[in-house]
Amino acid sequence: MAVTGTRRADPASPRTANLAAILRALRAGPLSRTQLAARCGVGKSAVSGLLAELAERGLVRAAGVLPGNGRPSRLVELDGEGAYALALSIEADRLSAVVTDLAGHLLAEHAETVDVAALGLQRCLDELAHLAHRVLPGPPVGVAISVPGLVDSAAAVLRFAPALRWRDAEIAGLMAARLNLPVEAIAVDNEANLGALAESIEGAGSELFYLSGGTAVGGGLVSGGTILRGARGFAGEVGHIAVDPIGERCSCGRTGCLETKANLAAVLRAAAAPGDPLHDPALGVEGRVALLKDRIRRGDQRAVTAVHELGVALGVALSTVVDVLDPEVVVLGGYFAELGDWLVEPVRVELAARPLGHARVVPSELGLRAPLRGAAHLAAERLFANPALFEEASV
Amino acid sequence: MAVTGTRRADPASPRTANLAAILRALRAGPLSRTQLAARCGVGKSAVSGLLAELAERGLVRAAGVLPGNGRPSRLVELDGEGAYALALSIEADRLSAVVTDLAGHLLAEHAETVDVAALGLQRCLDELAHLAHRVLPGPPVGVAISVPGLVDSAAAVLRFAPALRWRDAEIAGLMAARLNLPVEAIAVDNEANLGALAESIEGAGSELFYLSGGTAVGGGLVSGGTILRGARGFAGEVGHIAVDPIGERCSCGRTGCLETKANLAAVLRAAAAPGDPLHDPALGVEGRVALLKDRIRRGDQRAVTAVHELGVALGVALSTVVDVLDPEVVVLGGYFAELGDWLVEPVRVELAARPLGHARVVPSELGLRAPLRGAAHLAAERLFANPALFEEASV
Repeated sequence: MAVTGTRRADPASPRTANLAAILRALRAGPLSRTQLAARCGVGKSAVSGLLAELAERGLVRAAGVLPGNGRPSRLVELDGEGAYALALSIEADRLSAVVTDLAGHLLAEHAETVDVAALGLQRCLDELAHLAHRVLPGPPVGVAISVPGLVDSAAAVLRFAPALRWRDAEIAGLMAARLNLPVEAIAVDNEANLGALAESIEGAGSELFYLSGGTAVGGGLVSGGTILRGARGFAGEVGHIAVDPIGERCSCGRTGCLETKANLAAVLRAAAAPGDPLHDPALGVEGRVALLKDRIRRGDQRAVTAVHELGVALGVALSTVVDVLDPEVVVLGGYFAELGDWLVEPVRVELAARPLGHARVVPSELGLRAPLRGAAHLAAERLFANPALFEEASV
Repeated sequence: MAVTGTRRADPASPRTANLAAILRALRAGPLSRTQLAARCGVGKSAVSGLLAELAERGLVRAAGVLPGNGRPSRLVELDGEGAYALALSIEADRLSAVVTDLAGHLLAEHAETVDVAALGLQRCLDELAHLAHRVLPGPPVGVAISVPGLVDSAAAVLRFAPALRWRDAEIAGLMAARLNLPVEAIAVDNEANLGALAESIEGAGSELFYLSGGTAVGGGLVSGGTILRGARGFAGEVGHIAVDPIGERCSCGRTGCLETKANLAAVLRAAAAPGDPLHDPALGVEGRVALLKDRIRRGDQRAVTAVHELGVALGVALSTVVDVLDPEVVVLGGYFAELGDWLVEPVRVELAARPLGHARVVPSELGLRAPLRGAAHLAAERLFANPALFEEASV
């Protein structure tokens, strides 16, 4: 980090870091200079200088006054009119594209149900680029892609996505060509990491573990407000924590891994007999989970028992995660969020049985959309980290 | 973080952060301005200005030249002549005090074997203060205390130390009075956190998990070179990961927790019959472990089997830790380090059996001294974070 007095944004300078801190703080809504100074740990006079530069760049604007005792203080909010963050997501059965402003407000979205594994990498990315062009009103300031697998985020390479049977897919490079953007404009991250980021930015907590349920089970860690990726970008893997010594054989060769009990198909098998509509892939994840919730509400004992047992299995695995990470809150994401009414309690019971287990347990308020929202925030990050980009883009 | 042009150290300023980055980089030995610029991400001209300030404060000095092709570059090293870091440690059977310079070089040390639980908190701290006064050549720039329990590091309170039967002990405040220092000069941290910090600073890696073996089992996490504490400071707890479904009952009420298999007494019980000298507390941890190593070297089958089974249990627990944290390296610390020759292999075998387990496994090179070394580094940190302190101290 270099100390510099220049007013031009040098990506490595503390001034740029302060500009970014202010933009990030404003994501949550309008703030006064005093509030910004407190949130960003910057002197009030410095805040005024930084805001002047951001206003000049068209990234912040006045937003009325905060009525208070004494003289009212003027508020500022994010502007960035024409700054578009593009969030894309690849799920086993669905491709989605979302455009937001810098604050993460939805501007446009489109999704398609497709069998991604059958489509294959190249055609999937063609389709994804097609969706992107369809929703984008103009060139994006940044792009982030949510993928269901292990991502080497430094290299922006998807190392392995079991559900898609993809290995070492250079998604950033392949999409850069399709979107006619520089590769560094495109971030690729694991859906659980992005879900964790979204929940943290949108208020769930700054020390957070996000458990993601879908065709597989994943996890994302946020500490001090930033994603913890570990040495290779694989941190947060909880699918192979043993939860049942006499359980099913797992793809990893072991027995009773969380993955074998908590993946959606396994829970649905426990909840209904073969041939039941609950197993119909055509319904997609949302459709099958909606049907399962309906069964539970109607008191279907088999469905109730299956989901309760899922909660116990999640609790056993999460009690180890809580011991190791000591998060403030555990967020149940993906399809677990949809089943929060029935999962939170058994998870809490398991955590309470541990000597240290004091983390709060909540369902993700963003539900199945959390990874896409996280991707939108990550896409906007590129501009926050270097506000000069917007100027350049809008020249 | 405020942007400032002043040359006086304001603790919150990026300039102070840069001064700290330079001091930290020099801990490992002399560096040239070019090397410092690269390590600290600071422009070369800025480095010269920062070094001038640090030299003026007596914290760095010239250290000869680095012979190279082209003109040789001048080296600088840490000075801080008269800057003392005081590291104290409380173990179940031992009190230690160490004084180092800013680079962590040992200047003085003293230790005593005592039954801390029997001594009680107040008399233990009296004794510790006595040791401190005995080793200190002058007032310390900072103090850090290693304790065997859960520490709320924000409040500098030892929440719970099972082996000592202490709860909510306000160690920093109690020692501040005894050492006649401001309470903010005294840091208190868990021995595993400090072991992890020491291993990371002294080169084991910046994404690291340190597993600590003693009368209990603990863990410390380092990511990006800093200790991860979690929401309450309890992160790294691995003693209650289930490693044996049909194992012993644990104090936590569950069965087969790592703690039940990996605490020193349990391993020694597995290694030798009751009444065997191996169980003699008078030998201390080092003495009993030395005797155990001796037995293994002489091919004592019971000892060999006990330590191999310990390695397998550690491997099972660590494979979960590696999945969740994705560390670059796992360091076996405490008495596990002494048994590294026999533990590393079974741990590697367990990790290799996991889909993602690619972390290196090494015994701690600092061995049983790692927590004290970490405490010395943490004590010096107080000066690094605010170089003005030294001036004030030496006025």
